[in-house]
Amino acid sequence: MSSQLHLNAFLMGVGHHEAAWRHPRTDARNVLRAGYFQELARIAERGKLDSVFFADLLSVGSRIERNTQTTFEPITLLSAMAVATEHIGLIATASTGYNEPYNLARSLASLDRISGGRAGWNIVTSVGADEAANFGYAELPDHAGRYRRAGEFVEVATALWDSWEPDAVVLDAATGIFADPDKVHTVDHVGERFTVRGPLNVPSSAQGRPLLVQAGSSESGKDFAGRWAEAVFTAQRSIPEGQDFYRDVKARAVAAGRDQDEVKILPGIVPFIAESEAAGRRLEREFTELISPEYALRQLSQMVGVDLTGYPLDAPLPPLPPLEKIQGNKSRYQLVKDLASRESLTIGDLIAELGGGRGHRTVAGTPEQIADDLQRWFEAGAADGFNVMPPYLPGGLTDFVDQVVPILQARGLFRTDYTETTLRGHYGLRPHIGRYARVVAGVGG
Amino acid sequence: MSSQLHLNAFLMGVGHHEAAWRHPRTDARNVLRAGYFQELARIAERGKLDSVFFADLLSVGSRIERNTQTTFEPITLLSAMAVATEHIGLIATASTGYNEPYNLARSLASLDRISGGRAGWNIVTSVGADEAANFGYAELPDHAGRYRRAGEFVEVATALWDSWEPDAVVLDAATGIFADPDKVHTVDHVGERFTVRGPLNVPSSAQGRPLLVQAGSSESGKDFAGRWAEAVFTAQRSIPEGQDFYRDVKARAVAAGRDQDEVKILPGIVPFIAESEAAGRRLEREFTELISPEYALRQLSQMVGVDLTGYPLDAPLPPLPPLEKIQGNKSRYQLVKDLASRESLTIGDLIAELGGGRGHRTVAGTPEQIADDLQRWFEAGAADGFNVMPPYLPGGLTDFVDQVVPILQARGLFRTDYTETTLRGHYGLRPHIGRYARVVAGVGG
Repeated sequence: MSSQLHLNAFLMGVGHHEAAWRHPRTDARNVLRAGYFQELARIAERGKLDSVFFADLLSVGSRIERNTQTTFEPITLLSAMAVATEHIGLIATASTGYNEPYNLARSLASLDRISGGRAGWNIVTSVGADEAANFGYAELPDHAGRYRRAGEFVEVATALWDSWEPDAVVLDAATGIFADPDKVHTVDHVGERFTVRGPLNVPSSAQGRPLLVQAGSSESGKDFAGRWAEAVFTAQRSIPEGQDFYRDVKARAVAAGRDQDEVKILPGIVPFIAESEAAGRRLEREFTELISPEYALRQLSQMVGVDLTGYPLDAPLPPLPPLEKIQGNKSRYQLVKDLASRESLTIGDLIAELGGGRGHRTVAGTPEQIADDLQRWFEAGAADGFNVMPPYLPGGLTDFVDQVVPILQARGLFRTDYTETTLRGHYGLRPHIGRYARVVAGVGG
Repeated sequence: MSSQLHLNAFLMGVGHHEAAWRHPRTDARNVLRAGYFQELARIAERGKLDSVFFADLLSVGSRIERNTQTTFEPITLLSAMAVATEHIGLIATASTGYNEPYNLARSLASLDRISGGRAGWNIVTSVGADEAANFGYAELPDHAGRYRRAGEFVEVATALWDSWEPDAVVLDAATGIFADPDKVHTVDHVGERFTVRGPLNVPSSAQGRPLLVQAGSSESGKDFAGRWAEAVFTAQRSIPEGQDFYRDVKARAVAAGRDQDEVKILPGIVPFIAESEAAGRRLEREFTELISPEYALRQLSQMVGVDLTGYPLDAPLPPLPPLEKIQGNKSRYQLVKDLASRESLTIGDLIAELGGGRGHRTVAGTPEQIADDLQRWFEAGAADGFNVMPPYLPGGLTDFVDQVVPILQARGLFRTDYTETTLRGHYGLRPHIGRYARVVAGVGG
């Protein structure tokens, strides 16, 4: 367990709640403004948060008319946010399914250098058929194949990030040597899907390489997290479930030969912060009432693998296909199925429940109540910190930073100022030392 | 012919001269600092220049130890520069050879939105075997194949940029409609190399789509420029050669059904600016003397397709292979060959001549002499403007902006302030109107 919490802010449009942009507390035009996202990063930095994060899709798909997220590509946007901030970590989602490892490793390395070592990569395999159709695939590659490709992709990307030793750039004007060629290495990867010689054409950053983040919760996803992830975003509904997931992923990390502290588990939380619990619930209800049922039904249909169009909202879910038939997000499917059966929810209940958190846990209450809730999870060993998903922005983030963070700080649970300069540092990790780096002292000296 | 000049600043490390980073007028550590590139953009904007531009390679290749350019990926870096400026255009080189059209179109569209319609794309096919090896190719794809792929790539990218009509984003909170799905179109491209459904997941920018830039001067390159390019960077050594090239590309544009003013021809120029012509020549010589002959010989070998290692510097070039055997940059090969034979240059002469401009024209003199030179080319119909390649940075750019630009302005040859907000606007082009956009008035009304 970490000695202090880690906090990431999930920045989604004008809020994580799917109807956020219709609520008077937001200005929907902000989703088109880079300056708005720079301001969000500054607010998160004011709160000394570890990082901010963007999800991503490589399509608009069926969501065009309701989807406020379709505006910027994450790495370009984070680059603009990097130069408006000094400490906050910057995590981009990017797909192993539809990129070349050299290009993506390079863009992330470039963001990492622009930000002075504050970049992170949320690794996704891309589960949408809409995405596949933008890259020449008539059908979505199968779940196991996607993870095999992801594994090889990350092997190549991490090798490329290691290809420049930390002291490779020498800038010796007298001899005319810019970089020491003995400290810049080819990677010579020849694999099932990729053949990449290297080296990368970006020197390594202050943190050695970007932080690796992951969010899959299927068996393959958890294995992948155990092997690679340094932070895991996850949807957990209760402390016992959170504890099981926490122990599971940490055990997989240990089985992969890593220290269990090298992977931080960050369940999602959607906080409705108000001056009383009742006011928090009222605020949540205001947002729920703005959900478009027809759009939400389509979203729910995608999650459970059944077309729910025409089903009455007061009926329970029909029988769902078995897990092995689900080609998309398997963990989200399981979560919705369990939620519906355990709490006997109707389709309408599910839409309300999922609208704010999309499967993540919603908590409504006073700043003290929110802080109590986070502390309970943390001390129960169900979380190393949290992926904070403000239901509306910027207000939901501002309230968290100005009202909840000070309570966590007063309780000794969260940093009162940054003590590190890199994203890896914020998450309690040392700079990554690449595979080619020399032992500086002791050996051979 | 344009009524006024267009000026682009070519930003390369700490200067276009290959030994720039060794000269006391530069600080080589700047190539690692995003803030330095933001400052260069602000200097160019102070001079009211149309745009700044980065070249690019997808490898380090044989250039590791001497190459100061290996630091950032252009689009991420330009995004950081976009938010530090308000008017200057931002042109990124990116390859059609080793990207997916959806990803590249999206990153450029994102830069275009972040900058408020100031992005441009310098389209390259990638000619290096080192680059091919980073993307699974044992050999470089042939010249014709690269241009066929480039053509289809640009077809797809431009279709994706058209996929959002300008007024597709409606943000209607009352009805819950974010974007009008009737104004967001699939592109359904099915071609030889790419199958892409679309639509893009970034709405169109204030200029409709990024400016298209190109620099190839082979026959296929000029055809491509005639069909697609809105600005052409080119290496021309004399006014008659420049006039020929100018007429040639404009004619190809007209043959492709375009207006000849829709493509601006911008020859490169490397200005050594000083208080006298003699002082300019001395300054140039200072840089020449810092060239590493062994590195320069390797660069020259690549240009001419012959390994020159071991050849004496005072000897002429050996017989060169015929043009059709050159798989790399055909126009650069031709330029070097012509230069050597016309001016009876030795290998050593060629290294000195190419060190500053890499084939582009070097001019040394007073600000008046530089301005006179530019005016002569412009009035002779050999140029619509110039790709200004400061041999050292930031000083070479600062001097151009503060000493040459005011002369051009006083002569009525260059804008005294920005009159447009987009990059297309700076180059005298209207906002691009996509293929799906409705006729706003007059028809059917």
